[in-house]
Formats: sequence, structure tokens, C-alpha cells
Amino acid sequence: MPGPGLRVTIWNEHVHEREDAHVAGLYPDGIHGALAAALAQHRPGDEVSFSTLADPDQGLGDDRLDATDVLVWWGHMAQEQVADERAERVRRRVLDGMGLVVLHSGHLAKPFTLLMGTACMLRWREGDDRCVMWAVDPGHPLAAGVPNPLIIPADEMYCEPFGIPAPDELVFVSSYSGGEVLRSGCCFRRGSGRVVYLSPGHETYPVYHQDGVRRLIANAVGWGAAPEGTRPPLDDAVWSPPGWYEA
Amino acid sequence: MPGPGLRVTIWNEHVHEREDAHVAGLYPDGIHGALAAALAQHRPGDEVSFSTLADPDQGLGDDRLDATDVLVWWGHMAQEQVADERAERVRRRVLDGMGLVVLHSGHLAKPFTLLMGTACMLRWREGDDRCVMWAVDPGHPLAAGVPNPLIIPADEMYCEPFGIPAPDELVFVSSYSGGEVLRSGCCFRRGSGRVVYLSPGHETYPVYHQDGVRRLIANAVGWGAAPEGTRPPLDDAVWSPPGWYEA
Amino acid sequence: MPGPGLRVTIWNEHVHEREDAHVAGLYPDGIHGALAAALAQHRPGDEVSFSTLADPDQGLGDDRLDATDVLVWWGHMAQEQVADERAERVRRRVLDGMGLVVLHSGHLAKPFTLLMGTACMLRWREGDDRCVMWAVDPGHPLAAGVPNPLIIPADEMYCEPFGIPAPDELVFVSSYSGGEVLRSGCCFRRGSGRVVYLSPGHETYPVYHQDGVRRLIANAVGWGAAPEGTRPPLDDAVWSPPGWYEA
Amino acid sequence: MPGPGLRVTIWNEHVHEREDAHVAGLYPDGIHGALAAALAQHRPGDEVSFSTLADPDQGLGDDRLDATDVLVWWGHMAQEQVADERAERVRRRVLDGMGLVVLHSGHLAKPFTLLMGTACMLRWREGDDRCVMWAVDPGHPLAAGVPNPLIIPADEMYCEPFGIPAPDELVFVSSYSGGEVLRSGCCFRRGSGRVVYLSPGHETYPVYHQDGVRRLIANAVGWGAAPEGTRPPLDDAVWSPPGWYEA
Repeated sequence: MPGPGLRVTIWNEHVHEREDAHVAGLYPDGIHGALAAALAQHRPGDEVSFSTLADPDQGLGDDRLDATDVLVWWGHMAQEQVADERAERVRRRVLDGMGLVVLHSGHLAKPFTLLMGTACMLRWREGDDRCVMWAVDPGHPLAAGVPNPLIIPADEMYCEPFGIPAPDELVFVSSYSGGEVLRSGCCFRRGSGRVVYLSPGHETYPVYHQDGVRRLIANAVGWGAAPEGTRPPLDDAVWSPPGWYEA
Repeated sequence: MPGPGLRVTIWNEHVHEREDAHVAGLYPDGIHGALAAALAQHRPGDEVSFSTLADPDQGLGDDRLDATDVLVWWGHMAQEQVADERAERVRRRVLDGMGLVVLHSGHLAKPFTLLMGTACMLRWREGDDRCVMWAVDPGHPLAAGVPNPLIIPADEMYCEPFGIPAPDELVFVSSYSGGEVLRSGCCFRRGSGRVVYLSPGHETYPVYHQDGVRRLIANAVGWGAAPEGTRPPLDDAVWSPPGWYEA
Repeated sequence: MPGPGLRVTIWNEHVHEREDAHVAGLYPDGIHGALAAALAQHRPGDEVSFSTLADPDQGLGDDRLDATDVLVWWGHMAQEQVADERAERVRRRVLDGMGLVVLHSGHLAKPFTLLMGTACMLRWREGDDRCVMWAVDPGHPLAAGVPNPLIIPADEMYCEPFGIPAPDELVFVSSYSGGEVLRSGCCFRRGSGRVVYLSPGHETYPVYHQDGVRRLIANAVGWGAAPEGTRPPLDDAVWSPPGWYEA
Repeated sequence: MPGPGLRVTIWNEHVHEREDAHVAGLYPDGIHGALAAALAQHRPGDEVSFSTLADPDQGLGDDRLDATDVLVWWGHMAQEQVADERAERVRRRVLDGMGLVVLHSGHLAKPFTLLMGTACMLRWREGDDRCVMWAVDPGHPLAAGVPNPLIIPADEMYCEPFGIPAPDELVFVSSYSGGEVLRSGCCFRRGSGRVVYLSPGHETYPVYHQDGVRRLIANAVGWGAAPEGTRPPLDDAVWSPPGWYEA
């Protein structure tokens, strides 16, 4: 796990909290505020900043992305408003080494689906399901210090078949009261960057105030950061004459 | 999916059926008989034979293994009686290209744990759990024609963390009434052979008489068979002088 | 390996052969003609048809794609002319179960990069390199009947780091006279479809007339086909009320 | 990458250096001495200790293993002398979270083959081959700060098909002067532990005095260490009554 000092940007579309009193009551500082509190608790040395859809460049400007080691993404109803060009820029930064931690309904976020190449659809139900989240790889950094299982008293149900490529590392699988299951904690390597998908966190429940979930998100930020000395992948096809790599 | 004509050996320790009246009532022809009926139904052209722990060489003689394309394994209470030397011989045949379909409590079968290299432990409960088995990779040959989800009205509960290496192909995840989950349909490639683990089938329930389960087992046999023209891996370290591969 | 009878479409941009006398001399029936001959030799029962960039809908019309089990792709200098909308349509068909076999410079084909989500760049050299292609997984269907190693007397050099996601199945690695290496035979599962990348086949060499290469391409077509009974993945987020999956 | 302070044990069979003047000249402090120097240079805060085959318990006593975070293994001619019971103990410690970095001819070390479950054979040639080692995943922690390619002027040739399970993370592929290739930097997760295989380091060449190789080994030690808070996997089948995981 990389040490403290990561530059973390929490991107939150920040619409539900402004338009829905119930959500505003749960997250008076915004979902981004709750996520920042999780990082402050479990990764106290990081430099955490926020950005939202309402910000200039939709909070995803080049300068901001270039200064971000790990981008945490919460989006839902307004994800389609993210400009294609901004989504593409996020994708490129991930390939160059930025971490991307995609939460809950972010499975349909443009940068995530661009990086996956697949439809990323799933079944869902907004009801009163309890979610029980199991570490299938208890030695993985994402699972360190997280109860196994992690019980989330109420969350939106998400169900397989979840249309993602096979994760490079599958860490968590969740069940719901209705008997459904989801690969709910998935790690992907793309280019020199890393992508984590974590399913918890429907806006109508206080999921991000729960300690095990907070630790999980902090773990994901730590795992998502590229190691020091990471090289970007080739961004063009490079002509390489005989002997090009000789000293 | 390879065509018909596979030489399939169903190995069953065949102890519960002889010692327990309830199991005998469920499986009057033995668990192997029910598995053979599944193959007769869904892969009618295969040559299916049986062997059991009580047979000469524990039903795992060299000649038998050499004449087997896919070995189906059901064992439980007597698995420790399988001779180490026979388990090792099964492992070697898998590396050379034989398929191995390991059912239910076979997660602790000696050939399986030898091939995995890990402890293969899990949590369990013999109760009245319903199992709901989900294809997370609905395009995989194991899932073809199997309902998604496949509901097994009663089966033993098996729960993560299941101590296996990450499967090369994860196809099914199950939930149980108690909220537990298991990676219940897992494919592994080892040497030139293939190994499938499928969790359904506690001896005290009529699981192998259920059609979706039967199709699943037939699919696993088909997937487990090596393609024609398969080469075995190196079985020794081969000294290879300069130019050894030139015509 | 699925039996004969696949509907295979060979898509060739078909520009080099019309504009360059040397290439025309090597491939008087077009590169697609040589690829079709490979399939006729090694998968005689398939229904093989051609399409090229000059055809209506760029040879990638919906009706054609819908009637294709496996699409073989050769493109290079004109790949950027493929309409985004056609590339997206190919991607969707793959997710629904169509196989896609991408050859050589097709590593930058639009449908391939869309499916991968990464940059797919590599180093290259058009010189006189010999390529030696090694099966690292000799039990894989792609390797059946192919010499190990497969020596290609002259081909364009392609070199790591190749910017793809980790293949779901890595089958071949090649070395070149200059000491470079490439993951040259890679299998990916995306949605319910399968994607194969094979590096051999620069247009200025008679690579597709070589028998081992022809067998390799036929193997890839066989592997790429979805098993009978394959279900498409979800193409939308599906609301699933309590009890939705009960009989 | 975990911070400094790891407890690293370098196990060296330490036979060649005592019996062969040429090797003794290359490694006057033993191969373990050169490996320790690599760690002192690149991971200065670690606690590094040695053990060899001639030590009590073959240098693999329970107390030593229990006090080891990462075990580095160099063995060759005497690996068969390692007691089965000691090899099994190493395997168990890896499953419980110890890292294992296996070098060069250690591909046939008993703990490694037990953990892999496969034959782990390969082709080889002791000649004058140059080895060119390529990072295929340049964003991986193993590759950080290592030249790409890493040129080893002379080393033993190792060639595919290397009989290992597909690595969970493939980081390096090497070519040799003779045109052969090897998956030469491979990461495996087994239980809660991690296993790295790195091919460089035949005893008759000064490979471990080369800086890029030294950095590589230090990276492997860092990657091999389990994250803080790691739980061991189940070491027995655990009966779990209804409600066992409720608070």
C-alpha cells in the first residue's frame, strides 16, 4: 500500500444532495464530503480535494487531472452530461498511471465504460435489501481491515450478469436479501493505471458513514495509486530501428 | 464444445449410498448412476464408464486413466483413503491433457488440492439452505442452456473465503438462504489439462436428478476435454542446444 | 472446437493489394483470398464470405454482421476510414456473441481498440526480421497442430510494451531477430463474445501462404465462435423486483 | 510498495559457491551475499538475514519462517535435498501470507512446485546467450525503475513452454540470443501469500551484481509482502451455523 501523501480528487456529480431533501439529510456535506471523511480517517496524510459537475470543465480539467494520483468517482443521474471529451481525457490519464475508484452507479460512468469496452449493465432494485459483502481474496490489500463479511444494512440491489471484462483481481462478491449476487469489488489494470469498482453506496442510504465501507474506500485509493517510478505506456506506435535499445 | 465420443470415467467413492438408507433411496444406482444419466441425456455419444474406491487400484489404475478423456470426481467421507500415489497419478494425467470435473465435497479431493497447491477450505453448513447459482459469464460454454439463475431447492451451504487460486475462468457464483456466497463454478487450466470445480451435489439431496444441474455437468465434461492435437507439456527439463528448433 | 458450419466473414480493407504491385503479386486474390484458402484447408465446412472497405456500409452492414458467427479482420492504412458508427456496431455484435479475429496491424482497428479500452500501441520495424512464435500454453485450442515454435521467415517486427489489457488467455509469445518480444497470440472474452489477436501477417511478406500460420488462423476462428446456447449479456440496466426470478 | 522494515530471509542452498572456484570468484560472499547487497541498496530499511541448506532445519525452521515476511529462494543442484516436510512448511507459510521470491533454477524448488501444482519444466541451455528482459506491464511495481528492456549480457537460456499455471500477473518476458522466449517475471497469489518467479541468475555469471537485476529483486521483495491487516485463509473446513456472522 503506497504511503500517505497521495493527491486524491473526489469527483461527485453532486445533484441528488441538492435536489432531494432525504439525500441532503444523509449527506449534508455532499457524498464527496463523506468520502473525504473516510480518507481523513483511514489515510490521514493524503491531499484530498473535490470537484463536481458544476465546476469549470465539469471538474475534470486537464490541470486537475494531471495533478491527481487517484480519482474517486460518484455519479448517477447526471453521468450522461459528462462531456465525451472529458471522459476520454480521464481514460487517457488512467492509461498514463492515474488510479480511478468508481463507486456504485458509476458502473455506467463514461470513463469506466470506455476503459472496460463492454456494456457494464446489471440488474437492480431499489428496495430494502440488506447487502452482505464477502472477501473472496482475504489477502488482497482491498480487504485489509475490512470485516468479512461486511454487512451493509440497506443498499440498492445490483445483480449479475454484470457486463464487465473478467476483473484482473476479483476481491469481493456480495449477496442481497433477495438471493442475488454481484462481483462487488473488482480490480482492473489498464495501461499503467488501475481501476477499482466498488458497488456500495446508493444515495438514499447512509452507506458512506459506515466504518467498514470507509475503510474499503480508503484501501481502494491506496491500491489504485501507481507505484513510484511507473512509466506510461506507449501513446503512439514507435518505429524502432535495429539496435534501438542498445546503450 | 468437443463433439460426442469422449471417453468419460465417473469416479465415485460410493460409500454414502451403501451405508446410509436415505442416500441410497435418493441414488439407488449410486451417485455415479445419476451422473451417467445426466451425460446420457445431454451428451449421448460419449462412452461413459464407472469406477469406485472399492475397485482394483481404487478405480484409478494407470490403464483406466490413460483411456480417460475426462474424469468426473465425487468423493467425500473416504477421500483420505485415496492413495497418495493414485492421487499423484491423476494429477499427472491432468497435466498431460485429461479433463477433471470435481464435484461438491471434492474440493478436498487429493488430486484437486495437489493441482491447486492451496488449502481449498471453505465454510459449510448442512441445513436447509436454498442455493441460487448465477452465471457471471453467461457466454461461457459451462453456462450454455443452463437457467440463469439455476435454483437448487436444497443443498449444503458452502461459503467464501474458498481457498483456491483465482480461477482462470470464473463462471458461476452462488448465494445461499443464509446470505453466504461461493464461487461455485470455476475453471482452471493446468499443464495441458483442464479442471472444473462445481459446488452442487450434497449426497442427502436429489441435486443430480435436477435437469439444470445435469446440463451443467454435461457442459463441464465438454469443456474439460482437451482439443484434438493437444500436446503434453514438458515432463522434464529439456537441454536444447543452439539451433535445436531449426528444421 | 466448434464443428464445421460457422458463418465466417473475412473483412479486408483491400487497399495495399490494389495499390502496390509487390503486395498484389504476393496476394493476387487479395489477403482475404489467402485467408479464405486457409479456412478452406483447415475448416472445410465453414461458410466463408468476404467484405471490404469499398463495399456498401464499408462491408460492415448490420445484416452482414448479424449473419456472421466470426469476423476476421485485416486492416492497416485505411483503418481510420472505418466509420465510428460501424466500428461501434462491430463492438456491439461481439458483446452479443460474435467472434472477432484481429490480424497484425488490426491492433489499431477501431473495433479492437474500443473493445480493449486501451491504446494498443507497440513498437515496430519493417525490416528483415525473422519471427519465432512460441506457444506458452501448448494445450490451448489455438495451438493445436501448430509447430512449436512456428518460424515465420520474415515479418514486420512488433515489440512490447503492447498496450492491451492482460489477455484472458495468453497463448503465444514471439521473438524477433532483433531480440524484441511480443505477446502475439492473445484471447479476450468481452460480453458473450470472444476476441483473438494474432500478430503475423505484414502485407509485404507471404505470411498467409505458410501452413502453420494458416492452421493458427483456422484455430482462432474455431475458438472465437460462441458455444451453442450462448445468451447475450444485458444490454440495459434491468429493474428486477423481488421474486423476479422465481418460477 | 510496502515501506521499509520487512523481515526478509534469503535462503541459498550455498553449494556451488563452496564447490566451484569460478562461482566462488563471482560470489565471494555467496549468492545470498549479493542478493543482500541488492536489498541494502534498494530497500535499505529491511531486516535481512540468511539461511542455507547446511543450517539446522535446513535453514527453514518454523521459528525462522514465522519471523519472515518475504523469503527469497536460490537453489539448484541440491534442491532435492530439501526435506518434503520443510517444503510443505514453506508452502503453508506462503498460504498464511509470507511472500516467496523464487529465483532462476528455483522453478524446480519443492515449495514452488507444490504451490503451483504443475511440473514447472522448461527448456534450457548453458551457453553464451544474451538475455533481453522486457516489461510487458510497465506500470507494474515489479518494473518500477528497471530499464525496459533490461539487458543481461550472459545468462543461462530458459525457454517455453514453461509448465506453470497462467500467472495472475505477467510482468516480464525475455528473449535469448537463440530466439527462445520465457515468461521470466511472473506473479502468483496463493492463499493470503504472494509468489514471484524471476528467471535471471545462473551461478556462473555475475548477474546479481548488475544494477537493473538488483532493483528487480528488491521490487519483487516489496511486492511479495502482504499488506498490513492481511488475514490468513481458512486452514480447516469451518462449520458455520445459521446467523454465524451476525453481530
